[in-house]
Amino acid sequence: MDASATVTTRYTDLNPPPRILLGPGPSMVHPRVLRAMAAPPIGHLDPQFIEIMNEIQALLRMVFQSEEALTIPVSGTGSAGMEAALANFIEEGDPVLICVNGYFGERLTDMARRYGADVSRVEVAWGEVFTAQQVEEALQARPAKIVAIVHAETSTGALQPLDEIAEVAHRHGALLLVDAVTSLGGVPVRFDEVGIDIAYSGTQKCLSAPPGLAPIALSPRAVEVLKSRKSTVKNWYLDLTMVFKYWGAERTYHHTAPINMNYALREALRLVLEEGLEARFERHRRNAEMLWDGLAALDLMPVVPLEHRLPSLTTVYIPEGLDEAALRRRLLNEYNIEVAGGLGAFAGRVWRIGLMGYSSRPENVVTLLGALERILG
Amino acid sequence: MDASATVTTRYTDLNPPPRILLGPGPSMVHPRVLRAMAAPPIGHLDPQFIEIMNEIQALLRMVFQSEEALTIPVSGTGSAGMEAALANFIEEGDPVLICVNGYFGERLTDMARRYGADVSRVEVAWGEVFTAQQVEEALQARPAKIVAIVHAETSTGALQPLDEIAEVAHRHGALLLVDAVTSLGGVPVRFDEVGIDIAYSGTQKCLSAPPGLAPIALSPRAVEVLKSRKSTVKNWYLDLTMVFKYWGAERTYHHTAPINMNYALREALRLVLEEGLEARFERHRRNAEMLWDGLAALDLMPVVPLEHRLPSLTTVYIPEGLDEAALRRRLLNEYNIEVAGGLGAFAGRVWRIGLMGYSSRPENVVTLLGALERILG
Repeated sequence: MDASATVTTRYTDLNPPPRILLGPGPSMVHPRVLRAMAAPPIGHLDPQFIEIMNEIQALLRMVFQSEEALTIPVSGTGSAGMEAALANFIEEGDPVLICVNGYFGERLTDMARRYGADVSRVEVAWGEVFTAQQVEEALQARPAKIVAIVHAETSTGALQPLDEIAEVAHRHGALLLVDAVTSLGGVPVRFDEVGIDIAYSGTQKCLSAPPGLAPIALSPRAVEVLKSRKSTVKNWYLDLTMVFKYWGAERTYHHTAPINMNYALREALRLVLEEGLEARFERHRRNAEMLWDGLAALDLMPVVPLEHRLPSLTTVYIPEGLDEAALRRRLLNEYNIEVAGGLGAFAGRVWRIGLMGYSSRPENVVTLLGALERILG
Repeated sequence: MDASATVTTRYTDLNPPPRILLGPGPSMVHPRVLRAMAAPPIGHLDPQFIEIMNEIQALLRMVFQSEEALTIPVSGTGSAGMEAALANFIEEGDPVLICVNGYFGERLTDMARRYGADVSRVEVAWGEVFTAQQVEEALQARPAKIVAIVHAETSTGALQPLDEIAEVAHRHGALLLVDAVTSLGGVPVRFDEVGIDIAYSGTQKCLSAPPGLAPIALSPRAVEVLKSRKSTVKNWYLDLTMVFKYWGAERTYHHTAPINMNYALREALRLVLEEGLEARFERHRRNAEMLWDGLAALDLMPVVPLEHRLPSLTTVYIPEGLDEAALRRRLLNEYNIEVAGGLGAFAGRVWRIGLMGYSSRPENVVTLLGALERILG
């Protein structure tokens, strides 16, 4: 057998199983997005690609619900968006207040410290949300340059109200930094109306493009703070002062943009806006309610009270005595359904069920409920 | 007109032009790779994806020509690979020797300083390569923890011999860090045989997958150095001590891998190995020679002497008095051919012509030469 035959025998044609993705992301991807992604790449400085970049920026602004935010897709997954948000706004010793009510608040803390932030934390139990008063008291005790908070905690399924907290942050002279990874495109982010200064997301959640890009949005105030940095950003790849020269008027080469991922994102954003933001939010809400009703009928108890429950990601407590990993294996192996276990403090205690973007469809809800009924019943 | 129609009218179907990509990357992508990439994503912790990850690691080792290197694709473009290589091995104040003979040597310097390296530089003119003696003298004058050098300078088209420099670096107790962005898959990298400790590349050059991943390889010695770090890596997203827990036996979630980009890389690596490394290197060489002959016939003078000329990227001087940007615009607009201008010191002085991976085909060479003849003639 020649070398070529050996390779193809040992490494067969790619043949991923037809999963129904109902975990915390990646979500399922619409065929139109997959087709757009498979168009042959063109150069990252090609005038035609620059046109595509301009379109993506305009579409992103609409999805962030902002008129004037500076938006780009950072060339990495959601965590790279989080790191870009922190690395570009923290200088050595800067005081940063981080609201921690789940795994991604912890991650914000870890990252912020790597960039030399002087971090203070305000904490509530996992699954709960913060009141504006809690943030106010924390800022009274210790002022901060940035208040960082997670809009939609992917580890708990809690949806954080932001309006009053934005008002408090601004009154104390702080920038509001928001993790919108699991909210953008699934629940309203209202960037301008809330008064967010820095928000980031990922393509593989409610936008339903494959993972690989992290949309970020900056308010004019945030851009001013970025421009007035005294020190060099301590991360080259994510240095927005340089990246913006590529995405801005200069078109100066920084790094090669992930061309086909941008094709995918553009098509995913078109789908979001063709559906219409309000209709899309309503769909996420409606399918989530269908799921919640079905889970209740199976005696599966939700972690987050209805008032703050996220439509795009639901956590439920695992029934006493159940081998939860075995159940998830059966869902995957027998029904091709992916749901996730818990992270960190919630490991072994909860399941996480996502209904994001193209995954948020009634047929997926009934498939999951039917499979759960057969396995649990 | 409703909102949906407005969106599709304003943002029409994606329709990138059929470019012949003969610049410094991205290169053209084989249809099999585009098809593989368009498979629906599965979860980043799905056992089937973990199998794909294992396969990619094995295939990458073969392409790096290594038996025991630890290899993964970093979740960003080539520059993220460069930053991962530096960020993970530099601790505050570490002495690093950087060999600078082009734009990417400068970038290595910029990045290394952001991580607190005490950088010393050895320099030769753009387009030239280093002798082992020059590196030896630099290390005698000032020892270093890392010697960083570019194997294939994408800004100049020079191919750096590495064997003797590896020997010198090791004799002085330094790790050899190699930029293989424009060499991997196009010219031999010979990771083990040379004795490289840290090498990184990009998917969009001679591997001919779309941009978005950066393969990195570490020798056992480099892994030991990484494990014995005293301080936290100052970059969260690229922190290999955490990333390796996802790509290693633990499978601990770090960040969501770019699933479809990994599909694409796997197929691109299969294509490389089906062709066979030696046959592929020979093809790159043969098509480059055809290009060089044709450029000589057009009186276009190469920058790099034949001995150190890179088959995957050729630089030629721009003839006196020519509006080079206008020529490139005509190539693009009339013939759909992309070639690139110069970077940094070479801006306005050279063209860069890439024949990488799936772009390295005789039909592309004759197309370019024919178009150049018509425009210049």
